[in-house]
Amino acid sequence: MKLLFVVMDGLGDRPIKELDNKTPLEYANTPNMDKFASLGMNGLLHVIAPGVTPGSDTAHLALFGVDPYEYYTGRGPFEAAGIGLEVKQGDIAFRTNFATINTEDIITDRRAGRISEGTKELAELFKNMEIDGVEILLVAGTEHRAALVLRGDGLSDRVSENDPHVEGQKPLEFKPLEDTPEAQKTARVLTTFVMKAKTLLSNAELNKNRESQGLPLANYLLIRGAGKVPQVPNFEEEYCLESACVAGGGLYKGVGRMLGMHIIEDSRLTGGTTTNLTAKFDVALEALQTYDFVFTHVKGTDNFSHDGNPVGKMKFIEKVDKELYRFLPENFKNDLVVMITGDHSSPCSFKDHSADPVPVVIYSPDCRVDKVEKFGESYAAEGNLGHLLGKHLMGIALNELRLVHKFGA
Amino acid sequence: MKLLFVVMDGLGDRPIKELDNKTPLEYANTPNMDKFASLGMNGLLHVIAPGVTPGSDTAHLALFGVDPYEYYTGRGPFEAAGIGLEVKQGDIAFRTNFATINTEDIITDRRAGRISEGTKELAELFKNMEIDGVEILLVAGTEHRAALVLRGDGLSDRVSENDPHVEGQKPLEFKPLEDTPEAQKTARVLTTFVMKAKTLLSNAELNKNRESQGLPLANYLLIRGAGKVPQVPNFEEEYCLESACVAGGGLYKGVGRMLGMHIIEDSRLTGGTTTNLTAKFDVALEALQTYDFVFTHVKGTDNFSHDGNPVGKMKFIEKVDKELYRFLPENFKNDLVVMITGDHSSPCSFKDHSADPVPVVIYSPDCRVDKVEKFGESYAAEGNLGHLLGKHLMGIALNELRLVHKFGA
Repeated sequence: MKLLFVVMDGLGDRPIKELDNKTPLEYANTPNMDKFASLGMNGLLHVIAPGVTPGSDTAHLALFGVDPYEYYTGRGPFEAAGIGLEVKQGDIAFRTNFATINTEDIITDRRAGRISEGTKELAELFKNMEIDGVEILLVAGTEHRAALVLRGDGLSDRVSENDPHVEGQKPLEFKPLEDTPEAQKTARVLTTFVMKAKTLLSNAELNKNRESQGLPLANYLLIRGAGKVPQVPNFEEEYCLESACVAGGGLYKGVGRMLGMHIIEDSRLTGGTTTNLTAKFDVALEALQTYDFVFTHVKGTDNFSHDGNPVGKMKFIEKVDKELYRFLPENFKNDLVVMITGDHSSPCSFKDHSADPVPVVIYSPDCRVDKVEKFGESYAAEGNLGHLLGKHLMGIALNELRLVHKFGA
Repeated sequence: MKLLFVVMDGLGDRPIKELDNKTPLEYANTPNMDKFASLGMNGLLHVIAPGVTPGSDTAHLALFGVDPYEYYTGRGPFEAAGIGLEVKQGDIAFRTNFATINTEDIITDRRAGRISEGTKELAELFKNMEIDGVEILLVAGTEHRAALVLRGDGLSDRVSENDPHVEGQKPLEFKPLEDTPEAQKTARVLTTFVMKAKTLLSNAELNKNRESQGLPLANYLLIRGAGKVPQVPNFEEEYCLESACVAGGGLYKGVGRMLGMHIIEDSRLTGGTTTNLTAKFDVALEALQTYDFVFTHVKGTDNFSHDGNPVGKMKFIEKVDKELYRFLPENFKNDLVVMITGDHSSPCSFKDHSADPVPVVIYSPDCRVDKVEKFGESYAAEGNLGHLLGKHLMGIALNELRLVHKFGA
């Protein structure tokens, strides 16, 4: 038996007046999800714990059975892994932006005009760089994004960032966040690195071209999200599942990669609201030929939430639903388990994550069907899974896969 | 947004034959609580954990998100803080009664005839007392009640009490409950103190007057509930909420004070079954002008339970309900969250606390309304909060207040 695990980012919501006081998911016309709901088991998922608002990173660790309180050190390691950097335990990893700084040292564009080409070449400038015995690894991601890793002895992730998070200000100084030689050294290395980077980037051919075209220069690096790369459990070994990750966003690929999943690289796999959902679920279907466990991440729901757009979210959910026809029970020989949920709620009224639980449905061919007939927050509250914790989800999934690990004899 | 948190002591109950097999809460006519139930989210709260019967002290710690297994050392510190004694971390605090002892050393009245006047003057007798380098602080409370604090080095709360808990017996000896110099020293200091107190009290002017009036003398101190004052988290700092405590009972004020809440002192705020509920909720409403979080405690429900009086409890609940009209959604501009529950169940058939969960309702203007229409034990069991733990309540409340602390990014 195989398992398709669909995570719609920020899926959970609150009643919306314009939607007859239903949530976007409840209001949406979702015949396929409703079929799984009516043939499956439903419940409300507290991804980390009741009353705890998850970040996307901690949420995904929890969904995969990894305790974020034990393993989460910061977002950097997962972003770096997502971009493809082979992080090692003990590395200090950061999220990085190519940014624009003017001659008065003011950040004028935190994303260097969302630069779309040439950042790979810019990253090449830092090849084989070493500062104070610390190896510097910089890898470009999509648009203005990059990941930075410091590799060496005596480093710490307890350092502040240089990103002021608003434009029109000077970058901040890196400061040790604790009084240790490791934190001091790391802040020092970062300070030197950013100075060197400014010079290297300013002199780069690409920036001369951008200047002549009147484009914002990619002449500075904003660095944040420090995290020491943890030794996370290996998902495949832990659960004896050949696992694949079908995702666009770097973070989700990064979590998958760090847990040892196979990352399916396909240029059609993007995050966001305009992603090619047909391609995404085609890839997921194909992955089920090879892998036991296919994690498929859809980002758009959360984007609509952050924009406070419940109608957009509702329609996007309908688009996702359309693509799920591939996985309906009639298309499989009783050998597919389907699990659909979100990583957290993002009510459109909050425009941000919340601690509200997310609906979850688990379908397997001979599961204990409950009376729920539609997929949604209020319906799931009446399902036979009750309220459950993210950390218990994988165990329940393994049970449906009949991969039972008996505790005791 | 602000939050009103109403705790009815010992609210939860069991079906009562005379009440058509409903609980006092279910039987009571409570249109206001029912309105919150029908517009809000309902559930059953296990204040500490399923199957654990809370004390009033441990229950309130848990309701405020403070783990009683980590922080609770005994009732003394909270009673002392409630009376107004400025306890310090490491103090050993006790609940104390002024009592009557006869010439044969028999306790004839554990409450000195519920003495109502003059105990402040009696407590003055102990001013600046020191025994064995240990500072003695005695503060009188209401009626026969007082709080005792021992302050100094090398003390322990592992000592037995001298209260036999029945009349007609001699006081017990203080004994160390563990074989440590600290426990031995504390037992010794208490023994000396009680002997000195007996002499001082016997010679007091007040007792000479009481003798001539034929009143029981307040000539002895019964001491119990030893607890080392813990360093509890500061509620306001923990949750970034300016918080007020509206309560009559010393214990509840004590828990509030130790957690750093502002204690509203008003002579109309009393506990018990005859308390002025109109005044209590007037004070609570006024406090909402100033504070973000107003904890309002009502004691009477529990008193009726201890007396095994379900009809009295039912009618008292109706009186509380009447006063809640002030907080109905129509009187606020979508800026008040209301949370109503109990600190534990006290079934009238038990005449004591029980481990049965208590109903809880949380109303906020855009919460996920469930289908529950009345506030009560059996109705709450069908609410969308499901079963929840006391320790999760504050997180859920903060989420409704939109004071989101994201874990991760």
